[in-house]
Amino acid sequence: MDTTDLWTELATPGGRIVYLVMDGLGGLPSPDTGRSALEMAESPNLDDLARDSSCGLIEIVGPGITPGSGPGHLALFGYEPLRWRIGRGVLSALGIDFPLQPGDLAARANFASLNDAGDITDRRAGRIPTDLNRRLCDKIKASVTLDFPGDYFFEPESEHRAVLVLRGEGLSDDLPDTDPQQTGRPPVDMAPASDLNSDKAAQSARLVADFLRQAHAALADESPANGLLLRGFQRYERPPGLAERFGLNALCLAAYPMYRGLSRLLGMEVAPSPEGIDGLFDAIEQHWHDDFDFCFMHVKGTDSAGEDGDLARKAAVIEAVDEQLPRLLSLCPDVLVITGDHSTPASMAAHSWHPVPVLLRARHARRDEVVRFEETACLGGALGLRPGWHLMGLALAHAHRLKKFGA
Amino acid sequence: MDTTDLWTELATPGGRIVYLVMDGLGGLPSPDTGRSALEMAESPNLDDLARDSSCGLIEIVGPGITPGSGPGHLALFGYEPLRWRIGRGVLSALGIDFPLQPGDLAARANFASLNDAGDITDRRAGRIPTDLNRRLCDKIKASVTLDFPGDYFFEPESEHRAVLVLRGEGLSDDLPDTDPQQTGRPPVDMAPASDLNSDKAAQSARLVADFLRQAHAALADESPANGLLLRGFQRYERPPGLAERFGLNALCLAAYPMYRGLSRLLGMEVAPSPEGIDGLFDAIEQHWHDDFDFCFMHVKGTDSAGEDGDLARKAAVIEAVDEQLPRLLSLCPDVLVITGDHSTPASMAAHSWHPVPVLLRARHARRDEVVRFEETACLGGALGLRPGWHLMGLALAHAHRLKKFGA
Repeated sequence: MDTTDLWTELATPGGRIVYLVMDGLGGLPSPDTGRSALEMAESPNLDDLARDSSCGLIEIVGPGITPGSGPGHLALFGYEPLRWRIGRGVLSALGIDFPLQPGDLAARANFASLNDAGDITDRRAGRIPTDLNRRLCDKIKASVTLDFPGDYFFEPESEHRAVLVLRGEGLSDDLPDTDPQQTGRPPVDMAPASDLNSDKAAQSARLVADFLRQAHAALADESPANGLLLRGFQRYERPPGLAERFGLNALCLAAYPMYRGLSRLLGMEVAPSPEGIDGLFDAIEQHWHDDFDFCFMHVKGTDSAGEDGDLARKAAVIEAVDEQLPRLLSLCPDVLVITGDHSTPASMAAHSWHPVPVLLRARHARRDEVVRFEETACLGGALGLRPGWHLMGLALAHAHRLKKFGA
Repeated sequence: MDTTDLWTELATPGGRIVYLVMDGLGGLPSPDTGRSALEMAESPNLDDLARDSSCGLIEIVGPGITPGSGPGHLALFGYEPLRWRIGRGVLSALGIDFPLQPGDLAARANFASLNDAGDITDRRAGRIPTDLNRRLCDKIKASVTLDFPGDYFFEPESEHRAVLVLRGEGLSDDLPDTDPQQTGRPPVDMAPASDLNSDKAAQSARLVADFLRQAHAALADESPANGLLLRGFQRYERPPGLAERFGLNALCLAAYPMYRGLSRLLGMEVAPSPEGIDGLFDAIEQHWHDDFDFCFMHVKGTDSAGEDGDLARKAAVIEAVDEQLPRLLSLCPDVLVITGDHSTPASMAAHSWHPVPVLLRARHARRDEVVRFEETACLGGALGLRPGWHLMGLALAHAHRLKKFGA
């Protein structure tokens, strides 16, 4: 048992919590201006909020760990990501909001380019357009027939990415990746039955090998995407949701499939996709009188701008959120948390391990001397620097949703 | 093994440690004055000490967790409260300083009011006066005879609270609560043997059911306290004490039974109850030449004032302690730690989860720039913001009681 289980034990009804998550919010100072996107942005509402909140920094997964958005959000929701691991296959299926069922075996697929010798020349087939991906998925589905009492699904994600799902009794995810993670070699053979740890694994391996054989036959005359690589096999088991763990009836307001899928995984009610930042704030106004205790609002633009290395655009997204903030504040959530699921410094054009600023406003939040919501200022905040999974406990406490521990 | 076990491994004789624990010390700014009790109090000695110490904040049990005094003190003494859980029954017995023996089965009892249908109308029987509680406990003891080779004890705590202890061979604490935690229903029946996990549990359940039947008969003509609810069954096992874990021959100077009981549990020598704050400082002077390595001094008034929502009184208690401090300082303890076991903000009139200021003075304590002993100032201290159980390791180290780890 860890502290998050203690929250489960102590959970009791209380106030309402809103998480406003700006994806990839944290950053680094630009080498040119010496300022991060948060430091550049004119964000008077965020600054007022910081003044009136407990501020701090959260290290989302752990020291030095660069979180993907899946583990990043799991941590924010109080699921310690090393304990609640979600494999690549399931994350990919969630990423297209595929309706996984318990027991489904999911794997991430890449379209790849193979030469005449069968060696991989490009693990991503030149990042083929999504349209081509869709056509190839349809072609595979039209030509592959698996001889087992179950179903399979092969669904496009975007560019070269797709998802394989096998549904049936007795599947195992104790399977190797067929992606060797390098070019100049052939795809790894699905292991022979004798190398596998169980009959279920052997049966699953036969099934996957049969799928790959037929799929490669269907792709034989395609170029550049004449190969398929599979990795991250995982059987899907639904983890206990936010209701079960923390007594939270939760609502998700997010536009991107991955966040919607993950929210559904945790038992949240998922509202129709809001459009744009003002649409997100429309949505919270619209759903405010619905029956929920916890609302997750997701802003994607900060991360996309960071990934594109576009510091100015990242700052502009923060400003656009700041401008809308009064609409959320006027709803008076009992606890408001603003943070990100990881850093995405524009100067790195990628996710990073750096801690992310956080502010928590609530009636009994201990004020500190932070007057500006940004990386350096938050270092002096009342929440200190702490692991990402702490956040849910703090939110629950400030919503008076946790009973006293012991007499 | 966790880091506290490493302290065990590395423990060696060294200097003397004094913990001055002001119960419920941490607070929040008053909505009126914007200042917490620590910020209001005129405490020149504490401020001088802060200047000369490593300061910081401790999150006693974990993020969002509001500690009861039991887990709060366990954490301060280096017992991670999730690993060293003490149940309600044992805490209640400690709370009246009942001399528990290993194997005793303890439960917390509430006198309650039942209507003619046997449903609970008040789970606390209108918080009957302690005098009446004592009379009812005597009545129960005079009329209940249990047919087993052992003893039972039924002792008053205060108001509606009492403690049941069964002493004998083969008892089990795998028993349900009979308190349904709500009114309008009858007490929960002690589970039938077939529902229980072991013969021992079945035997213990029969014994408890027999006790309840006879106790209810004895209370039948009482009003309002004609019922009894039991919860938090726990068998008492003595944890390894401070001597065994950290090589500390420890002394407790505390007036309240709960703290005395907990100290005895950890193997401390418990001195006669000091009276008032000056009595506490009399006691440390008086016992200074006794043979101890660690002294726990407990001030209750800060918590009581906080629980009463009386900010001014809480500040006054801090000032009263401050005034006595030179007496302790003149004894020159090698390590002096001043902190609390949890926060009790007067504005909440209850324990809370907020981190608690701490100062540690010792010859080799690294100074910081904190010049005032209060919540916000301590944020900038050399100890940072850290879990409560860290404190004992820091105290041991500064007393030079921990050998080097590894070569």
